[in-house]
Parts: sequence; structure tokens; C-alpha cells
Amino acid sequence: MGAALALNIAEKGFPIAVFNRSPGRTRTFFAEAGDLAPRVVPCETLEAFVAAIAAPRIVIVMVTAGTPVDDQIAVLRPLLGPDDLLIDCGNADFHDTERRSAAAASGGPAFMGVGVSGGEEGARHGPSIMAGGTEAAWAKVAPVFTAIAAKYEGEPCAAQMGPGGAGHFVKTVHNGIEYADMEMIAEVYGVMRQGLGLDPAAIAAVFERWNRGPLASYLIEISAIVAATLDPETGRPLLDVIVDSAGQKGTGRWTVIEAQMLGAPVTAVEAAVAARNLSARREERRLGAEIFGTPAGNPPDVTVEALENALLAGKILCYAQGFGLLSTAAREFGWTLPLPTIARIWRAGCIIRSTLLGDMAQALAATPGADLTHVAPFTDILRRTEGDLRRVVAAAALAGLPVPALAAALAHFDTMRRVRGTADLIQGQRDFFGAHGFERVDHPGAHHGPWTRS
Amino acid sequence: MGAALALNIAEKGFPIAVFNRSPGRTRTFFAEAGDLAPRVVPCETLEAFVAAIAAPRIVIVMVTAGTPVDDQIAVLRPLLGPDDLLIDCGNADFHDTERRSAAAASGGPAFMGVGVSGGEEGARHGPSIMAGGTEAAWAKVAPVFTAIAAKYEGEPCAAQMGPGGAGHFVKTVHNGIEYADMEMIAEVYGVMRQGLGLDPAAIAAVFERWNRGPLASYLIEISAIVAATLDPETGRPLLDVIVDSAGQKGTGRWTVIEAQMLGAPVTAVEAAVAARNLSARREERRLGAEIFGTPAGNPPDVTVEALENALLAGKILCYAQGFGLLSTAAREFGWTLPLPTIARIWRAGCIIRSTLLGDMAQALAATPGADLTHVAPFTDILRRTEGDLRRVVAAAALAGLPVPALAAALAHFDTMRRVRGTADLIQGQRDFFGAHGFERVDHPGAHHGPWTRS
Repeated sequence: MGAALALNIAEKGFPIAVFNRSPGRTRTFFAEAGDLAPRVVPCETLEAFVAAIAAPRIVIVMVTAGTPVDDQIAVLRPLLGPDDLLIDCGNADFHDTERRSAAAASGGPAFMGVGVSGGEEGARHGPSIMAGGTEAAWAKVAPVFTAIAAKYEGEPCAAQMGPGGAGHFVKTVHNGIEYADMEMIAEVYGVMRQGLGLDPAAIAAVFERWNRGPLASYLIEISAIVAATLDPETGRPLLDVIVDSAGQKGTGRWTVIEAQMLGAPVTAVEAAVAARNLSARREERRLGAEIFGTPAGNPPDVTVEALENALLAGKILCYAQGFGLLSTAAREFGWTLPLPTIARIWRAGCIIRSTLLGDMAQALAATPGADLTHVAPFTDILRRTEGDLRRVVAAAALAGLPVPALAAALAHFDTMRRVRGTADLIQGQRDFFGAHGFERVDHPGAHHGPWTRS
Repeated sequence: MGAALALNIAEKGFPIAVFNRSPGRTRTFFAEAGDLAPRVVPCETLEAFVAAIAAPRIVIVMVTAGTPVDDQIAVLRPLLGPDDLLIDCGNADFHDTERRSAAAASGGPAFMGVGVSGGEEGARHGPSIMAGGTEAAWAKVAPVFTAIAAKYEGEPCAAQMGPGGAGHFVKTVHNGIEYADMEMIAEVYGVMRQGLGLDPAAIAAVFERWNRGPLASYLIEISAIVAATLDPETGRPLLDVIVDSAGQKGTGRWTVIEAQMLGAPVTAVEAAVAARNLSARREERRLGAEIFGTPAGNPPDVTVEALENALLAGKILCYAQGFGLLSTAAREFGWTLPLPTIARIWRAGCIIRSTLLGDMAQALAATPGADLTHVAPFTDILRRTEGDLRRVVAAAALAGLPVPALAAALAHFDTMRRVRGTADLIQGQRDFFGAHGFERVDHPGAHHGPWTRS
């Protein structure tokens, strides 16, 4: 990622010094830099690296999240001056970024935590960039970041999110949404494959078709490619030779934990993280199949068109949860997170890029503070698609095909459309056993039930 | 809670000194201690309190979780000797208990973190007690804790869980299960009320009947009472005057966060915590109802008997998730959590007490390390009830009645009974955009797809 970002920076006309703790990697990088080599200064010591940059310096750190970042900062800080700027472009728990920003504020080089999305490909040719830090720091780096960022109809996908950890927070939520988006696609894939009995080639064709409609997005596009790919070794569909056990690198979990701390549910993300965790329990799943059998020959009564609508509804609800989490975080942390800008810089470069995000940017700008599901065009899309979402969830439940993220999205929708829920019973129980008290619908204050205990 | 626990201790024959930072409350407590007053020594200063206890002392702290506990420890420690024992009987984040235990190990009085469940009533007449700490510390306090604990067929519901934060961890998971148990009951209540159109009196009768079957439990028992209760002020069913906005005190959230950190999904608890959070968003729900309407006149095609089976299946799956989390934590933290004992001490005194827990204790003892759903009698109960669980989830989805915890439990079941899931697509996507690599089903190692990017 660091190498790809460095080449991107050089390509946009900025001279860049590079350092890796393995000098061999620095040399290989330089040897392969080709046309860009004249703008690259390979350095074999940190001292040489710092000396190679004209003050005031901008230094980007790209190492594994956690302690390695602190270690890198610790060795760099003494070499840098108060006008220099140190930037962590890796994924980071935003609490760490807040801590590092606060530490930097007491002297030495300024610090920025910047979220960069788009994988290796994005880093090389145009990522989506979510910067945290002061306005002054952003002003210094904006020329570089806007130059290297992806462009959506000419508009760079890079912006300042807010102070301290705001950029890494937004990047974390981006990744949480990515988890849910991927899981929902995998769920409808499962219904098509294991329920409707479509083969990967047929499913690839479905994804391709969907990619020309409202679901058009990078993830649907690559799902089509992945489903269409044959294994060169066996000639079988590649999907069938890939072990169905998904990894996770922590940002999905971070999203869930922050949502829990803020009381802002992102249940579709929770379902997605859980699904990845359970996918790794292959031996327990095998045992479960042996004990309970796996349902088969019970195709769910849904069409491919219903699946398209269900995925669209689920996706909108998942994004509504994500933007809801960002709103709550902004309120709680005293940030002014630019929600429409966030949707705009996610339109290109990042993994969740999609045409829908353009509509989301407009909707969030037109009605600031509104829930995404409450504004055009999403209200109408949901009205049109929610029926299929519930039909798919119901059919999958009956057929024994798990669709936890879609089901969580549906439950969110149905919960948030009723004036009267069922927490009255929970409040009654809590007052009964713990004297927690409850509010009454007719007058204010805390009340207790006239309980008589046996 | 502290007062109730003190009276319980005195009642069992132990002399006890009591202190509250408001001397007025201490005086009131003493004045109301009645027959037990001779065994109670009210103290108006901490110094007098400590002096009133014969060394080696056992001191129980019962204050709000978090900083107040640290503050209380800070003022007590200098007054106590190395043979004394300081016990936090409140709820605590187990990380805090680990930290306090480690700090105590460096000198001064020993420290124990002890989870106490059962609400005020339980504390007074017999709670379930989950103790953390060393074997030596437990030996000192066991006579008191086993005397005051609830008894199940004569067996005290108190036991040592493991060192440091183990007791508070188990108590946290207990509470997480409690959240899910309550939410699932509220969900079937919602289906009966808003779907089948039963009134609270009829629902109370259903709960009463269920309480004589396999669902027999404290929570079903009190749900029947709550549903049957009329509001003295208006004469209406009390449930209808209680605001449907549930509070939460943090242990549900702690459970979810620890499960995330351990990669051990407790999706039913996640759904329950989210449901409570969303219940508090009354204005947004009203707006959602205005925009999308609330489905009505579309009664789900399920019977009360199907709901009973669905709740039973959901409950077993939720407990399987909870015990699974305890197993994972034990492995991760190097604890030997006594799972069968945990099920046994939850049979009485605590909020989730039920007849099922007796069967769970036997099952966990008979097949150590097994998933609860894989052992008798739970495998057979699930085989018998899973059909109704899926019919209820499907019908509720179609009728627009949210059942997020039941749906999460069903998805867990269906995920863990199939050899082949859908994470192959997720792994394909991740390798495509991030070169993360994947395992192959046919030979070991990390592999990459033959991607050609456009």
C-alpha cells in the first residue's frame, strides 16, 4: 500500500523520498519505479530520509495498525521540526489517532490521521481519502491528497472530515458498511446458488445485469468477475475451490464497538462481522450439518428480480445505519462531520463506490440531519422494494438459507416505522425485578408498577 | 442493593458493620433493620466502620460501576491490612476488575470482583453469586456467600468462577443473555399483540400456560404478571400506559463488545441491545410510521403454539451463543470456567433462572466443550422446534413485525448447520480488491485468483 501510494504521489508530479526498514525493499521499489524514478529519492536510513525532504516536511507513515505506528512516530518525532507534519495513512482505531493527535499538540511535528480506501489498486491510481486533523494541517496537504485521489466527474475524492480521529473514524465506518455490503451480496448469492440452484456462470450474468441498474457498484462488478472466473488448475468455477472461511482485519469490529458505545445500532454490520466469524468455524459447521442436516431441495419461492430489490432495500438500510452512526458520533464528539461530502468522496476510489452514493450525497445535502430512509429518492425506493426484502427474508427463513444481514436490515426498517413497539413489556419486567421505574404515556416522571410479589 | 445484601448477611447469622457516605441513610437503614438490628453495627465514618470489624476483615463495596469503585478502594485500602479482603459486588467491566486485582496483588488487602444477580429481591433473599478471585480468597468468603445465596434443591447458587475478572465476566454474559431472553419474549408478545390481536389479559394467560411447560422461568412468570396488571390510575392494562422505550445499563453492551473482541458472535444479544437503543428513538419512529405507515390487518399465519416453540428454539440458541462466548473467553484468558457449575448457579436467584438451566448444566457436564445445540436434550428440542422458529420469523417478516433476536438466532442455527457457506464469494472479493489471498479446498497455502482487471 505504501509503495502504491508513493508511486501515485510521484506520478502526480511531487518529488518523494521513500524509506522502508528493509533497505532491500526500498532498492527493489526504486528499481521498478520506471519513468517515475527521477522523482523518487530512495533512502536507507531514517536520517537520510528526513534530510532528503525540504522543510516544512510532510511525512506519511504506512505501517500495520497499533504499536508499529507508535514505534514509527517515536523514532521520527526527534528527527522532525515543529513545522513538519506526520501523517498516519493506515487504518487506525480512531481512539489511537485521538491520542496521537493530542500528544502531538504538546509540541514537535503536527499529526494527522488519514483514512485511505481503495485497496492496493486504489492507492496506486486514485483512492478515496478521509483526512482527520486541523484545518491548517489540511491546507498544507490538500494539494497532494486532492491530486492523488480518485476523481468522480472531475471532483477529487478527498476531504477533511474533522479534527483528531475524525478521518479514521469515518474510514472505520466506511469499512463497516463494506462488511455489510459484501455480506448482503454473499447472502443473495447463497439464495441463488443453494436455493434457486443457479451455477456461478448464471450468477455472474445476474450480477452483470444488476451492475447496469440501481445496484451498480464496484462490489457488484467484481462479484460478477469473481463468479465468472474459472480455476486455471481444475477448470471448475473458482468460487468452488475457495474455502468459505472469511478473514477480517478489525475495522468491522471497530465499527460495531463504536456503535455500541454510542448507542447507534448498525445491526447489518454486526450480522456481517458475525457471519465472517462463524464462517471460520468449519469443523463446528460440519458437525452441525451432520447432526441437523442441511436443508436441500426446498427452493425458496423468490425470483431473481425480488433478490435485486431485496438487496437494494437492504443496502439502503445498511447505509442509513452507517450515516446514522456518523451523525451520532459527530454529535457526541463535537465534530461537524460533512455527511454529504463523505457520500461524495465515496463515489469513486473506495471499495463501496456506487452510483447510489451520488443520490445519497444529494439527499444528505438537501435535508441535513434527516435519516436517509426519510428522504427522496430513498423513501420511494424503499416503498417499492421493502415488499421484496420481506419476501426474500421470509422465503430464506423457510428454506433454511441464512440471510442475517438482510434480516437485520428488515427488522431495523420495521422497528423504525412503528409508533408503538414492545419495549413496554421490557420496561415492565425491569421495574418488576429491579425497580428501575418507567415513564408513563400520560404524564411525566418515573413511575412504578403496583406489583405484588408472591 | 447494598442494604438488601447487608440484611441478607445479617439474617444468615453474620454480624455486619455498615457504612454509607450519607449517615442519614445508615441511620434509616439501622432503624428499619428490625429483628436483625442486634447483628448490625451502623458506622458514620469509614474509620469507625473498619474498626468495628474484627481482622481479618471482609469488606464489601457496593457502589456505581466505574470511577466510584476506584474512589472507594482508594479511601479503604489505607485503612485495611494485608490479611483483609476487599470485594466489589456491583456490576463491573471485567477489565476494571482485572486491573484492580492486579493492583491489589502488589500489596495491601486482597481484592475480589463478585457478580451478584437477582435484583433487589435477590440480594435480600438469595441471589446467584459468581465470584472472581483466588482460591484462597474464595475459601475465606465461601461460608458467607453460600449462606446468603439462593438455593436450588438445597444447593447454593454461589461459586468461584476463576481468577481476577472471571466472576464479573460471567456476570456480564449472564446479563447479555438476560437482554436477549427479555427481547425474545417481547418479540413474541409483539406478534401476539400486534399480529394476532390478543389483549394483555389473554397474553398473560398464554405466558402463565407457558410457565408450566419447557419455557418455565422467572422471566416468563413475571411477564405473565406484568401483562395481567391493570393501571390503578386509569384501569387500563398497565402495559399500555408504559412508554415503550427501554433503558440499558451497560452490561448488554459490554457483552457485545467482549464477544466482538473474542470473535465469538452473540448475535441475539446484539439484536436485543439494538432493539433497546432503537426503542428510545421515539420521534424517529413516529416519523417513520408517518412516512411508511405501520402494517396492520395482516395477521401472521402462526399459532400461539408455534410461538411457544419458536421462543424455546430461540432461547436455546441464545444460551448456546452465551456459553460459547464463555468457552472462548476461558480459552483466550487462560481461565477454567466451570460451565456446568455456571448453569447450575443460574438455576435460582438470578433473573434468567429457569428449569432449562438444569438440563443445560447436565448437558455441559456430560459433554465438556460441546456446543449446547449438539447435545441432548437440546438437539432433539431444536429438531422439534426449529420449524416453528422459521415459520414465526417468516410470518413476522411478511407481516412487518420485527423479531430481530429470533431472526438472528435462526440465522445462527442455519449458518452452523451447513458445510458450505457463502464466504467463498467474500474471500474472492477480498482477494480481488486487496490481494488478501484465500485458501483452496484441495491443497494448503495462500492462493490468489487469476484476476484480469479492466
